[in-house]
Amino acid sequence: MNRDELTAIRRDLHAHPEPAFCEIRTAATVLDRLRGLPVRVRTGAEAMTVPGIPAYPSDAVRSGFAEHALRDGHDPATVASLAADGTAVVADLEGSRPGPVWGLRFDMDALPIGEADDPAHPPAAHGFRSSYDGFMHACGHDGHTAIGLALASRLADRDFAGTVRFLFQPAEEGGRGARAMIAAGAADGVDKFVAVHLGLDQPVGTVGAGIEGILATTKMRAYFTGRAAHAAAAPQEGRNALLAAATATLGVHALPRYSTADTRVNVGTLHAGDNFNIIAAHAELALEARSTDGAVNEDLTGRVKQVIKGAAAMHGVEVRIEETGGSTSMVCDAELVRDVVAACHAAGYGSQTLETVHMGGSDDASLFAAAVQQSGGLATYAVVGGSNAAPHHNPYFDIDEGALPVAVDMLDKLIRNG
Amino acid sequence: MNRDELTAIRRDLHAHPEPAFCEIRTAATVLDRLRGLPVRVRTGAEAMTVPGIPAYPSDAVRSGFAEHALRDGHDPATVASLAADGTAVVADLEGSRPGPVWGLRFDMDALPIGEADDPAHPPAAHGFRSSYDGFMHACGHDGHTAIGLALASRLADRDFAGTVRFLFQPAEEGGRGARAMIAAGAADGVDKFVAVHLGLDQPVGTVGAGIEGILATTKMRAYFTGRAAHAAAAPQEGRNALLAAATATLGVHALPRYSTADTRVNVGTLHAGDNFNIIAAHAELALEARSTDGAVNEDLTGRVKQVIKGAAAMHGVEVRIEETGGSTSMVCDAELVRDVVAACHAAGYGSQTLETVHMGGSDDASLFAAAVQQSGGLATYAVVGGSNAAPHHNPYFDIDEGALPVAVDMLDKLIRNG
Amino acid sequence: MNRDELTAIRRDLHAHPEPAFCEIRTAATVLDRLRGLPVRVRTGAEAMTVPGIPAYPSDAVRSGFAEHALRDGHDPATVASLAADGTAVVADLEGSRPGPVWGLRFDMDALPIGEADDPAHPPAAHGFRSSYDGFMHACGHDGHTAIGLALASRLADRDFAGTVRFLFQPAEEGGRGARAMIAAGAADGVDKFVAVHLGLDQPVGTVGAGIEGILATTKMRAYFTGRAAHAAAAPQEGRNALLAAATATLGVHALPRYSTADTRVNVGTLHAGDNFNIIAAHAELALEARSTDGAVNEDLTGRVKQVIKGAAAMHGVEVRIEETGGSTSMVCDAELVRDVVAACHAAGYGSQTLETVHMGGSDDASLFAAAVQQSGGLATYAVVGGSNAAPHHNPYFDIDEGALPVAVDMLDKLIRNG
Amino acid sequence: MNRDELTAIRRDLHAHPEPAFCEIRTAATVLDRLRGLPVRVRTGAEAMTVPGIPAYPSDAVRSGFAEHALRDGHDPATVASLAADGTAVVADLEGSRPGPVWGLRFDMDALPIGEADDPAHPPAAHGFRSSYDGFMHACGHDGHTAIGLALASRLADRDFAGTVRFLFQPAEEGGRGARAMIAAGAADGVDKFVAVHLGLDQPVGTVGAGIEGILATTKMRAYFTGRAAHAAAAPQEGRNALLAAATATLGVHALPRYSTADTRVNVGTLHAGDNFNIIAAHAELALEARSTDGAVNEDLTGRVKQVIKGAAAMHGVEVRIEETGGSTSMVCDAELVRDVVAACHAAGYGSQTLETVHMGGSDDASLFAAAVQQSGGLATYAVVGGSNAAPHHNPYFDIDEGALPVAVDMLDKLIRNG
Repeated sequence: MNRDELTAIRRDLHAHPEPAFCEIRTAATVLDRLRGLPVRVRTGAEAMTVPGIPAYPSDAVRSGFAEHALRDGHDPATVASLAADGTAVVADLEGSRPGPVWGLRFDMDALPIGEADDPAHPPAAHGFRSSYDGFMHACGHDGHTAIGLALASRLADRDFAGTVRFLFQPAEEGGRGARAMIAAGAADGVDKFVAVHLGLDQPVGTVGAGIEGILATTKMRAYFTGRAAHAAAAPQEGRNALLAAATATLGVHALPRYSTADTRVNVGTLHAGDNFNIIAAHAELALEARSTDGAVNEDLTGRVKQVIKGAAAMHGVEVRIEETGGSTSMVCDAELVRDVVAACHAAGYGSQTLETVHMGGSDDASLFAAAVQQSGGLATYAVVGGSNAAPHHNPYFDIDEGALPVAVDMLDKLIRNG
Repeated sequence: MNRDELTAIRRDLHAHPEPAFCEIRTAATVLDRLRGLPVRVRTGAEAMTVPGIPAYPSDAVRSGFAEHALRDGHDPATVASLAADGTAVVADLEGSRPGPVWGLRFDMDALPIGEADDPAHPPAAHGFRSSYDGFMHACGHDGHTAIGLALASRLADRDFAGTVRFLFQPAEEGGRGARAMIAAGAADGVDKFVAVHLGLDQPVGTVGAGIEGILATTKMRAYFTGRAAHAAAAPQEGRNALLAAATATLGVHALPRYSTADTRVNVGTLHAGDNFNIIAAHAELALEARSTDGAVNEDLTGRVKQVIKGAAAMHGVEVRIEETGGSTSMVCDAELVRDVVAACHAAGYGSQTLETVHMGGSDDASLFAAAVQQSGGLATYAVVGGSNAAPHHNPYFDIDEGALPVAVDMLDKLIRNG
Repeated sequence: MNRDELTAIRRDLHAHPEPAFCEIRTAATVLDRLRGLPVRVRTGAEAMTVPGIPAYPSDAVRSGFAEHALRDGHDPATVASLAADGTAVVADLEGSRPGPVWGLRFDMDALPIGEADDPAHPPAAHGFRSSYDGFMHACGHDGHTAIGLALASRLADRDFAGTVRFLFQPAEEGGRGARAMIAAGAADGVDKFVAVHLGLDQPVGTVGAGIEGILATTKMRAYFTGRAAHAAAAPQEGRNALLAAATATLGVHALPRYSTADTRVNVGTLHAGDNFNIIAAHAELALEARSTDGAVNEDLTGRVKQVIKGAAAMHGVEVRIEETGGSTSMVCDAELVRDVVAACHAAGYGSQTLETVHMGGSDDASLFAAAVQQSGGLATYAVVGGSNAAPHHNPYFDIDEGALPVAVDMLDKLIRNG
Repeated sequence: MNRDELTAIRRDLHAHPEPAFCEIRTAATVLDRLRGLPVRVRTGAEAMTVPGIPAYPSDAVRSGFAEHALRDGHDPATVASLAADGTAVVADLEGSRPGPVWGLRFDMDALPIGEADDPAHPPAAHGFRSSYDGFMHACGHDGHTAIGLALASRLADRDFAGTVRFLFQPAEEGGRGARAMIAAGAADGVDKFVAVHLGLDQPVGTVGAGIEGILATTKMRAYFTGRAAHAAAAPQEGRNALLAAATATLGVHALPRYSTADTRVNVGTLHAGDNFNIIAAHAELALEARSTDGAVNEDLTGRVKQVIKGAAAMHGVEVRIEETGGSTSMVCDAELVRDVVAACHAAGYGSQTLETVHMGGSDDASLFAAAVQQSGGLATYAVVGGSNAAPHHNPYFDIDEGALPVAVDMLDKLIRNG
């Protein structure tokens, strides 16, 4: 696959951003591109376990995205199966010589952010801005998926030792996809796990062979149920779920910093109430805790829940809290970091290679890493600089496409070096 | 129109509840029923002034309700015109003798409340529960509209003095419809104004000839605009609109009671944020202030705005506040109250007639009343008991249909007594 | 006692304001003035029951006020006894003819408010401003006590039927004194109870023979106990009582208005924490609920407690809530109201006499009234206008002294009329 | 000075803890002990500049502590001068050979914390628990002062090169003392600056020759002024300073964590209101911001102020914010750190010596350090382990007295090594 083709795939994906577990058109594109390559593909229940996924999108929502895939001419049977059974794709490509099993994670999901419509934003200027209102690839997963496909094409000559498992993952945002794939056995037998991530405020050409500071995280939803009442005729009959949720929000954000580890809390969304003149009977929060230390994240998560329950009790409303996702912290293995550094040198990017980059975010690749490391394997998380124009999760986020071949080249060398 | 027909109309309307300014199927039904009666009908710009209505529903929303009307077989031209130009209907019925111009207000809109689906709830038991998910006639406007249509049919003999103007009003909830109709001249020339309201916790057979305690109100929306940021990688770059809105909510509810008048405040809805891991860049509140005293309502409204602006300033976010509706307080004219009492006696309901009922809510009929009174006319607001099973705006709200003929009889006598 | 003497007593009391249960110099003055009159005096445990009074001032605080009384030359034994056993004084004056037992309540306590030091404020201009920093007679109790003493002097001729019981009450503010006196039997046998109150925004010369709108109230203190920690070195080890108290405060003020009765809530004081750099381990609130309806006050009190407990739970801190006082609502007996009106006419103030004045506050005289009414007696609460210069509880509050003889004359006629 | 005497001084100081700028008995003790040594002593305006110190304690407060010093038999003239002109003491001890000017900081102030009264707490068991209610040496400054005095005694032989300046500093807690001493020239001419601190969770025998993670900090007070009103009769007339302060507190604690540096915020005290039934007219907060990065601390401080101002605006109250203290972050000079390490080895503590200890707190010694470094000098901050029984600022805080000679020995060797 040449560079133009790589860029074209990324732009096509960028223009069609699909959120967590709705990556139907994206996975269909992945399957199309894998066709003809010497890979063994698993999808559906062989690639991910849907039962038990919290807050899985409704049939109606998934159908909406399936329609887009059909409109673009994707195979109806494939689309139907992806919509019904899940969007994860696992593809094993066996080399011509015996060797380790590599697990390479490429995440596919987009975010519920409206993309900037401004000529200063390259996707807008060059015609590949999101065509799905309110959704955007604002974290580079469009590029990740394209990199995975280019690498599979490059390695189709099978001139390497071992097996490369391409893990095309749904729902990295919110931390639910990796867990579902691991449950289906996608990490079984992997000896060396590598996730790549574009961006992270590094310039094009820079590769970080490992990261530190990846945050353990817990994603939660809280559902408050009070009692509606006419806000003028009988406000005292109401039990105000909106007030409970607002109080919880302030309380969660006011939780203390920890001196023992870096922490984060965020109530990201609050939706409550029906009308001006009704005491709000229901409210819903989406929120998260994080920490550089897994135990601190658990302690903080416990306090977040305590705050929410207390706020509900204050206002006489019921609350149900659901953990909808999460991931753990991660320590990159020095041996594999060294291999990535060596691969960068071999690929000609040595002068800009860093051993370690500070992450400051979360990624459920950490769950793949933990699974592999617990079985005696190695894991790292490599950052490929993309001179990102704006911070991750910003409507102006964009990746310099020069980053795409850097990642492909680095991974290619890493695999072939063994 | 016999009682069965009256009940049937009410049930049909009950099953098809349309919210403010979307009363397309309802208004089409009204127009159908008026056809053949000796009335002069005004619709569109002659009945209401759309430009300037705050938070008017979008074309897409109105089109959705228009489709329902079409599916039910209503005339496509009528439906298109109601969707395009507004749903108010003004119908003048001239008596055979000279006399005053009566203005009778019948409001048509429903509420964004999901109706109870429980055999204990009569509309569910008898098959006329809302067929529009999330919407419900939970304030009796279905009955009001049916009463207006039955009265028009009854008075079609023209055996009375003067003219009766039927004011079929959209958007009483939220307080925007009366203002728009007055702007189009609907109150011009009215000498005696009467609004009827079913329910208010009075038993069937009871009529309150006037009310006290009607609340002046201001409906507002507040739009907060902050700055998004990754909640882990750079939370300090964000400006948190959700926190500002939550803080404003607590502050608004904590505003003092007044010793000089009864007051209410309510933040009815709060919607903010996009995702767990993004500092929320936008938030929106729908809220209201009320008071038995118009000046106190204004003072309270000013303090509500001050709270909102201060909360935005705390968190470094911008805020825009929009007054989206409102109504004033109302004093019923004793002379007209006496006429209603007399009409009740004449209609055989005298033993249960009250001069005054306590309201404790708001109704923008007060704006019609104020317009008429300022021109030297008289106004009252009559309550027709309906043994309501649950409070207004509750998913179990229902009216005993025995109330419908009471209202028609009373109004019939009132007009014919002159 | 002539008018100059009456004024002089009031000014002396005004200059020496003593807060709840510390009215030692005041009670000593009362006892001095009663000496030589034909009264039977009860003090100490015969006049009030100290055990069980919540938040009774400490020995140290009472000793401080006792010192003032000693410095002014009051009898050391009397002062010691008042400081030790309570400051209530009950004095029975028997008329020369048989008749009813009248109970007249005169409250003696001042408020913890600093008095205005401004020549525009008459007590400052005329040299009788508070000489006790931070305390002030800002509710007219100085005048009440003076009225009681003048009336006792006037009725010393015993030319009336029945017995007059003068109830010199401590601690009206905060609602603890009446309860303590009733517990000691001070209300036993009273047939007709009258409390007088100066001010209430009525002009001098106006007497309200009864009141409506008196508020039932509950006074509470909440004590939060968390855990201290260094705010930088280990904030996560702390449990923040200050945050819990601040959250409770917002939640209490945000409790709904009631449509069934007028309500009030107020967190009047919050004291928390020790230093900038310590997570606050303790916090204390003084707060109140009120309502025109006793049952609503109880419901509201319950919700206040629920809010406080929930806020403590949010932040992992303990809380103890203490009801420190309270009073009930009150309905004045029409028969006694008529007698007061007649007395006013007899005293020459008839033209300005009102049957009923709106109160909008609380007074634990309501507990005396309830005790008397439950035993078949009658009760009223009379307002004597004083052209108050500023609202009650304001640093500029003052009473036109012309009000004092009006009250004495009215009560004199009431008793002598029988 | 032998070890028993060193311990005795520490225990005497421990039993008489004096808060910021009230260290009168402490400074008098210092002056007594310095008498007879070959030092040049500066006090009063030569040692610290009082004008401009924010929230300097009132004359009455300082007089109270002066009385304690007099009762203990300290010279009245000395006590009067310390109370009037400030409690800092600067003592220069010149060695017998030319050399650098050493500045050694010993802070003297205690904290407003009540000390544990529990036999498990050594000061309680051994009879040197605080005799001043509500104050406690809970940060080891009693030990620091004793160390300084023992070192001065030890170095009185003048067998070293250069000059040692002993900086006995008031008001380290709250960050105001160092600034006042620097303003008076106390840091002028210093070539090498060392502060020692006991404790910090290190075992006895361990010395940290330098620290990292010292936090820049800003201490603030916010004074809210609203309008009082009767909470029942006219709550709407009030402007609630307590609500504003509670809202500000939640908002300050809810400020975001920074990804660029470690931060802290704390509202340590809140005092508001006068009585249950008065809308609180005034409120006062004592609060602090901190960060490992000085610029982040400034940014955070700005946001804290914005929150406070916005909260005041919400509730229509005025607010004044005062910066009452602060300090900066600090980088220890490697050369001086090496000298401390060498001194530890020379003193026989080498096996437990660390180059760097993590601080996680603030100390305005950083201002001395900054002043010295800006003039080309060197600075470090040495931690002397004390096996502290409880965290700093805890009622059970205590130092193993075995730490005292370690500090004296280390400093002695450091100076004599040159």
